[in-house]
Amino acid sequence: MPVNLPVPVAADLFAVAGVRIGVTEAGVRKANRKDLTVFLLDEGASVAGVFTQNRYCAAPVQVCREHLAAGQSIRAMVINTGNANAGTGAAGLANARKTCEALAQALGVSAQQVLPFSTGVIMEELPVGRIVAGLPAAIAAAKADNWALAAEGIMTTDTQPKAYSRQLQVGGKTVHITGISKGAGMIRPNMATMLGYLATDAAIAPELLQDLVKELADGSFNRVTIDGDTSTNDSFVLVATHQAGNAAITNWDSADAQALKAALQDVARLLAQAIVRDGEGATKFITVQIDGGKTEAECRLAAYAIAHSPLVKTAFFASDPNLGRILVAVGYAGIADLDQTKIDLYLDDVHVVVDGGRNPLTRKKTASV
Amino acid sequence: MPVNLPVPVAADLFAVAGVRIGVTEAGVRKANRKDLTVFLLDEGASVAGVFTQNRYCAAPVQVCREHLAAGQSIRAMVINTGNANAGTGAAGLANARKTCEALAQALGVSAQQVLPFSTGVIMEELPVGRIVAGLPAAIAAAKADNWALAAEGIMTTDTQPKAYSRQLQVGGKTVHITGISKGAGMIRPNMATMLGYLATDAAIAPELLQDLVKELADGSFNRVTIDGDTSTNDSFVLVATHQAGNAAITNWDSADAQALKAALQDVARLLAQAIVRDGEGATKFITVQIDGGKTEAECRLAAYAIAHSPLVKTAFFASDPNLGRILVAVGYAGIADLDQTKIDLYLDDVHVVVDGGRNPLTRKKTASV
Repeated sequence: MPVNLPVPVAADLFAVAGVRIGVTEAGVRKANRKDLTVFLLDEGASVAGVFTQNRYCAAPVQVCREHLAAGQSIRAMVINTGNANAGTGAAGLANARKTCEALAQALGVSAQQVLPFSTGVIMEELPVGRIVAGLPAAIAAAKADNWALAAEGIMTTDTQPKAYSRQLQVGGKTVHITGISKGAGMIRPNMATMLGYLATDAAIAPELLQDLVKELADGSFNRVTIDGDTSTNDSFVLVATHQAGNAAITNWDSADAQALKAALQDVARLLAQAIVRDGEGATKFITVQIDGGKTEAECRLAAYAIAHSPLVKTAFFASDPNLGRILVAVGYAGIADLDQTKIDLYLDDVHVVVDGGRNPLTRKKTASV
Repeated sequence: MPVNLPVPVAADLFAVAGVRIGVTEAGVRKANRKDLTVFLLDEGASVAGVFTQNRYCAAPVQVCREHLAAGQSIRAMVINTGNANAGTGAAGLANARKTCEALAQALGVSAQQVLPFSTGVIMEELPVGRIVAGLPAAIAAAKADNWALAAEGIMTTDTQPKAYSRQLQVGGKTVHITGISKGAGMIRPNMATMLGYLATDAAIAPELLQDLVKELADGSFNRVTIDGDTSTNDSFVLVATHQAGNAAITNWDSADAQALKAALQDVARLLAQAIVRDGEGATKFITVQIDGGKTEAECRLAAYAIAHSPLVKTAFFASDPNLGRILVAVGYAGIADLDQTKIDLYLDDVHVVVDGGRNPLTRKKTASV
């Protein structure tokens, strides 16, 4: 059961001009399952992405990096579930390339203009034949208002699709932002990977896009943790189709540009939080807020130490206000000159720790490590 | 149920000349429980220790550091269970000092010659009155062959006492090594801390002792992980009483010195492993061995990434040969130039991964993240 995660309503998801999406059943791993999704991008769209930092990364991630680095405009993305094409060596790379080539040929573009994504079991050979065979149906099904279907099409162990949408005025024009994500932790033995796709029809100078996608990821997907492990296939992609008719954003100084970025960040954050809310076995959704550190980096150290601690997680799972575990996590966060007598701790608005010791005003309750 | 952990037999534990141990019931937290242990050291004994790296450390750890730094010879150690005296602020420090003062007074030594240790619930005030009141009985009970009782006396959530002993010839003299430890992970909500005490009657030049205790800890307590969190009170102390009659070891060059160090390391390793075997909820005892790294540091990065990964732990718990999770952990271990196509993996002697991909010769089994 996801934690307070609404099921997206297709009618609430805005189409993004310049993006068409097709979803089909290719039988990658199981029959009768939407497991192949293609994004078709109009000419002129700009694409940027961030990918797993894990050195043991999947073949499609390697191909995505290559194709983005090649600098040709991206015209399509192809996503299969059921198989992550990770830990598959040279054959895996060849299969990821074959998928791109097949889609490129069908669309009359070059293979380098296609980005491949795979999610599912790892260390199994990708059934590239079934994927290639499924492409024509996916292409034929492509249309602009298929975002809800795409959110379903990229699911693996997710219990429900994840999609959010916003529209706002930028330079007197209505621009749209729609995104989908998948990923339910790496807890469950048979599936892997978080994937996120965010598209807008706003015109944004292409040279801003790579920094933007990094910034959006840092404020969203890079701020959540379920089991603390990173995956082989984690990918987050931002598409700007430039079709909304606004004067292209060339910097973030104007109020409109700020509002656009805030809306993009909002959707990215919701997509990332949706993954936590739908984490396998998740029963709680916790936000860690750190104030008063010397630097943002120091605050992040403390936040991640708390958020990653298995003992803190188990305490929250048990609904046990185990203050000691939180303080201990701060203690090993790597802040060299931490003064333990200056730590205050709130659980929601209850001031439970004052100056590193239990607040004598709070109800007596054994809190321990 | 501990994993293959023999219960120590008192008759197998050698007395260490110059060390007497007394254990009593002080009612620190619960009645009818051996919860107060004193080590009385003959004049001339040398003591060195290593303590938790957690910045949020307990009052007794702070006092131990102070007293060791003061440079007076240590004549006694006092250990209470039931209360860790952590997260207790200035009052906690005062209580740790009071305990030392009371024991020092009874023994006719200075408070700086006493090391205090506490383990149990945190963020509760230490019932120092009950501890001080219990000291005379503990002192009166002190004798040389109380090691098994001490192993019981320092237990908290441990399901059984942990003690090991060795004797060997050094310079034609029989020397003895005996050690005890406690600690069962931080999994259980109400108790904390690993403690380890190792004593030998071998004569070892005191200036070697601090490096030695660090080296022993690095090869034992610093190599094990249960839940990945560090505690507020973790302490490991080495005592050399110099009473065996051997010519003092002044370096580790000789075969006898090497044998002594190896025996000390052996006991320290067994004590550390005993904590893992008795980990709360532990069902497996896993050893991670890394070969072929560029440096030992690189091998450790990979080993700790695997050992700390909650996903690897859960896979082993489930007896699922989840190769992907192990490879993924290596991938995020922080080895910047890791070549994923050069990784081989064995589970015991089964060669399951070749060149970063599943060994085609092993039985087909879905392994995934």
